Amino acid sequence: MISGHIFMAMSLDGFVARENHDLDWLMKQKTGGEDLGYDTFEAGIDGIVMGSGSFLNVLRLGEWPYKKPVVVMSQSLRDDAVPENIQSKVRIARGGPKALMASLESDGWKRVYVDGGLLVQSFIREGLISDLIITVIPILIGTGHRLFGALERDIDLELTGSRSFKCGFVQNSYRLL
Amino acid sequence: MISGHIFMAMSLDGFVARENHDLDWLMKQKTGGEDLGYDTFEAGIDGIVMGSGSFLNVLRLGEWPYKKPVVVMSQSLRDDAVPENIQSKVRIARGGPKALMASLESDGWKRVYVDGGLLVQSFIREGLISDLIITVIPILIGTGHRLFGALERDIDLELTGSRSFKCGFVQNSYRLL
Repeated sequence: MISGHIFMAMSLDGFVARENHDLDWLMKQKTGGEDLGYDTFEAGIDGIVMGSGSFLNVLRLGEWPYKKPVVVMSQSLRDDAVPENIQSKVRIARGGPKALMASLESDGWKRVYVDGGLLVQSFIREGLISDLIITVIPILIGTGHRLFGALERDIDLELTGSRSFKCGFVQNSYRLL
Repeated sequence: MISGHIFMAMSLDGFVARENHDLDWLMKQKTGGEDLGYDTFEAGIDGIVMGSGSFLNVLRLGEWPYKKPVVVMSQSLRDDAVPENIQSKVRIARGGPKALMASLESDGWKRVYVDGGLLVQSFIREGLISDLIITVIPILIGTGHRLFGALERDIDLELTGSRSFKCGFVQNSYRLL
């Protein structure tokens, strides 16, 4: 059975980005090289699903950071939006979360990293997420794009781990019940 | 110098209450009698400032739970809204956060517990809060009243402590920088 997994950072007031998508508040954090567990997390997944906004943001970084295959969910992005040098690593998928997960399962994927605020919200709403790893950044930014969105019903969580870092980050792991 | 302190619970998605002020999602949590540190916190403050909404909620509980003096900030509540049996413990104050803190300081208060969502937001915005103790409850409720609100500028935080409880709560302490 395929499962969705989340590994995201949010400000203490629950934002993943400013209104204008700026991440300056996150990038300015001094982590002092502490291992925040991302590499271990990425090693345990089969691939990454992200929205077009996240994809275009990552492209702007210049260097492609992902080792695992990436699927970009987009109704509007054309296939030629993927630069040639990463065409073996990235593909664009149409359709909704459930259809995509079924398709990935038939490709043999078991664990999918679901990345990006809006995508996280829709995958949670559709019951496609098994667990969350949330790293809380020690800052209040007041407004922006929230990690979590409206729900049709409460979602109870089981805390499966909590650790804090010298840099002031707190990383909590939850299983969705 | 008088200082404001916050000790609040929020859902992982940042809410202190549902839209209708319901706390059922919090009250249903099974803490198994674990000491969440409230008594130690209350022992270290001189008194509590809350809004009229929180005050009326607490009154509805029947038994008055606070050992320390309580000041209810309200422009509309009349003095006779305070039941006779707690008139020695509760008073109503008009005016804004800064004026109230100055007045409490002249009364000899040093550490003030600021309680209730809206009050927390206004005291943070006015720079009257020194530190936060935030207990994150393992549930997503989707909508409601948020603990944190809009800000004129970012507020950087220093993590001063983090602990998790068997019941799945994570309690983080921050100093406002």
